[in-house]
Amino acid sequence: MDPSVLTGLVVPGSSKIVFIILDGVGGIQMEEKGGTELQVARTPNLDKLAEVSSCGLLEPVSPGITPGSGPSHFALFGYDPIQYNIGRGILEATGIDFPLTERDVVARINFATVNKDGTVIDRRAGRISSDINKRICQKLQKGLRLGGGVEVIVEPVKEHRAVLVLRGEGLRGEIEDTDPEREGLPPLEPKPLTPEAEKTVALVREFVLQTRQILADEPKANMVLLRGFAKHTLYPSMKERYGLNALAIAAYPMYRGISRLVGMIVLSNVATLEEEFRALTDHFAKYDFFFLHVKQTDSRGEDGDFEGKVAVIEDVDRYIPQVRLLQPDVLVVTGDHSTPAKMASHSWHPLPLILHSKYCLVDPVKKFDEVSCIGGVLGKMPSVDLMPLVLAHARRLTKFGA
Amino acid sequence: MDPSVLTGLVVPGSSKIVFIILDGVGGIQMEEKGGTELQVARTPNLDKLAEVSSCGLLEPVSPGITPGSGPSHFALFGYDPIQYNIGRGILEATGIDFPLTERDVVARINFATVNKDGTVIDRRAGRISSDINKRICQKLQKGLRLGGGVEVIVEPVKEHRAVLVLRGEGLRGEIEDTDPEREGLPPLEPKPLTPEAEKTVALVREFVLQTRQILADEPKANMVLLRGFAKHTLYPSMKERYGLNALAIAAYPMYRGISRLVGMIVLSNVATLEEEFRALTDHFAKYDFFFLHVKQTDSRGEDGDFEGKVAVIEDVDRYIPQVRLLQPDVLVVTGDHSTPAKMASHSWHPLPLILHSKYCLVDPVKKFDEVSCIGGVLGKMPSVDLMPLVLAHARRLTKFGA
Repeated sequence: MDPSVLTGLVVPGSSKIVFIILDGVGGIQMEEKGGTELQVARTPNLDKLAEVSSCGLLEPVSPGITPGSGPSHFALFGYDPIQYNIGRGILEATGIDFPLTERDVVARINFATVNKDGTVIDRRAGRISSDINKRICQKLQKGLRLGGGVEVIVEPVKEHRAVLVLRGEGLRGEIEDTDPEREGLPPLEPKPLTPEAEKTVALVREFVLQTRQILADEPKANMVLLRGFAKHTLYPSMKERYGLNALAIAAYPMYRGISRLVGMIVLSNVATLEEEFRALTDHFAKYDFFFLHVKQTDSRGEDGDFEGKVAVIEDVDRYIPQVRLLQPDVLVVTGDHSTPAKMASHSWHPLPLILHSKYCLVDPVKKFDEVSCIGGVLGKMPSVDLMPLVLAHARRLTKFGA
Repeated sequence: MDPSVLTGLVVPGSSKIVFIILDGVGGIQMEEKGGTELQVARTPNLDKLAEVSSCGLLEPVSPGITPGSGPSHFALFGYDPIQYNIGRGILEATGIDFPLTERDVVARINFATVNKDGTVIDRRAGRISSDINKRICQKLQKGLRLGGGVEVIVEPVKEHRAVLVLRGEGLRGEIEDTDPEREGLPPLEPKPLTPEAEKTVALVREFVLQTRQILADEPKANMVLLRGFAKHTLYPSMKERYGLNALAIAAYPMYRGISRLVGMIVLSNVATLEEEFRALTDHFAKYDFFFLHVKQTDSRGEDGDFEGKVAVIEDVDRYIPQVRLLQPDVLVVTGDHSTPAKMASHSWHPLPLILHSKYCLVDPVKKFDEVSCIGGVLGKMPSVDLMPLVLAHARRLTKFGA
């Protein structure tokens, strides 16, 4: 559905929508374990919910496409994941809760080691500690002067990774990476991908030059490699698109950052599952839309830890009754993508979806897993179609056409 | 998925992909036979494969659209069947293994009979024999001289059908058919559909004029009607798009021709099922992607021969164990479209799909037929989405987005 057409159908309401998103929840069977993580997990509360709900499978981006966290979440919030594919720099910045503005061009920095000829001998500067990273960023921040009314900001992330922000008028993000992608080569010269980016490229060159001088006495991190340049653009907010006052409850910074990009209010003081679900109850009166993000399903999947992922799923299941007590008008339980423990990585597989509301068509699905949900009334659908369906069940969309 | 985005995700690999394509395999129930051809056929090996695979239904082009062999195969190979809809002339040329170049404009020739006023009295020249066709094409080839650096080639196909190729620089294919579509009318004058085609139209006029003189003494085939003009354009190859070295194993020339259009290497010395499957084993080490085409399912369907089609399906089933012994990383068994014996023609019905790989999500489908596969995890999907899914299972796609 074209977003502008959808927005034209939005009507005001006081209904409440809850998204419980288990990151990477989808899996595939491991024969020796007796099924997928969800098939093996004991989830009486989720199964009870499935029994009185519409179920289906979500395909995050498109058949066969394994999404990163950015595209898979944008799709869940109803934003075209191809169109709103954010750059690595932006994602790193959102991941450290850095407040970006529309005047910013952002890139990811990898600190690296070069020898005296300028050849990269370690693309990760020996994976320096986060403390050294922090010190180096402060040193750079103190020494750098770009002029031309452009502010330069260097923010540490973790180990050898940092974020570069150039802030000023008329900056452009169409700039090639300077990372040569392997060792034994010098860093690449920053090059514009469009003529309009030439002015910004000149600033990037100056940044690299000054950085090299400032870091000349560092034993490891004496150079920067830059990747994923992008201009930050403001996204239409969920308020503008859907008329929703949205709250994000996420323990991990990256998901708070993504939520902020679509205009959600973001809680910062939640770290555990218990705190997340308590926050949902505590703030339930004040917002219309709640995004509650569970990270550990993905982490355990990435570790290849089948039992660990099963345990997280069972933990989440125990909180479902308290969510139902809140009586949200629409309750969605699903994930952003699959992270099968068998693969120890994100994957393209579709993942199960529960959509509960007093207006849902109840189907025969009685269990929350990838195979049971095949038989659901929602079928297999792209994640980006979920949000209109949710708005409809929340009675927040009027009729299309006379 | 936009092909350029997809190509951007492709990573090199050594995994092997096998497509077993049973042309026209899909059917509909004939009550007196007890089901569809696939439901009636005894296929223990395909059923065993379905049991450990992801299953679904393929829709070749779009709901309700009955495809020709061109679109249905292009879609299987991941090429948009609407965008890459090849002209009748090109299809005839590929069907006789004629090697086209980028300088060629191609049309299909129907030999016809005109009376002395120039009125068409038989649009198929009494369906002359293929031998006479051959003789007439040689006679034309000997007599025709177009000048202007343009080569003219006339290749016989079958009965009254032949192919015209004009080869030279700057030729255009935007030319109207000269076939009046019914008898009692004179052939139409060749007309340009764009001003840029005027030069080529002049050549076509000259071709028709000379042809009429050369064939003036023929009792039946004394005129040509031209249809489906098109400039041959090079398609992006499967190597360029997916990084695959692809081999086509097909007994019928047209499918070899289509394969060649997408850059496959084409075996020419296979005529029987046994030879096709032996060729798969023999060449397994040397390529990444194998397209094995079974024609007889479609032929028997076109004949309305239900039992004949069942027998071909059962024949193919016997070769499945030897394919599985090769342990391809991805094994696909499906068709290009349906050819129900009940209809004795191509149809629009969806057809069953098996996708097997160690990374597939196994669903409850235990039988390879149109009805069982409804319950598969792949759902009903457009054929053009198959290729990205196959590349994913072959671990040849990286993550989309950060």
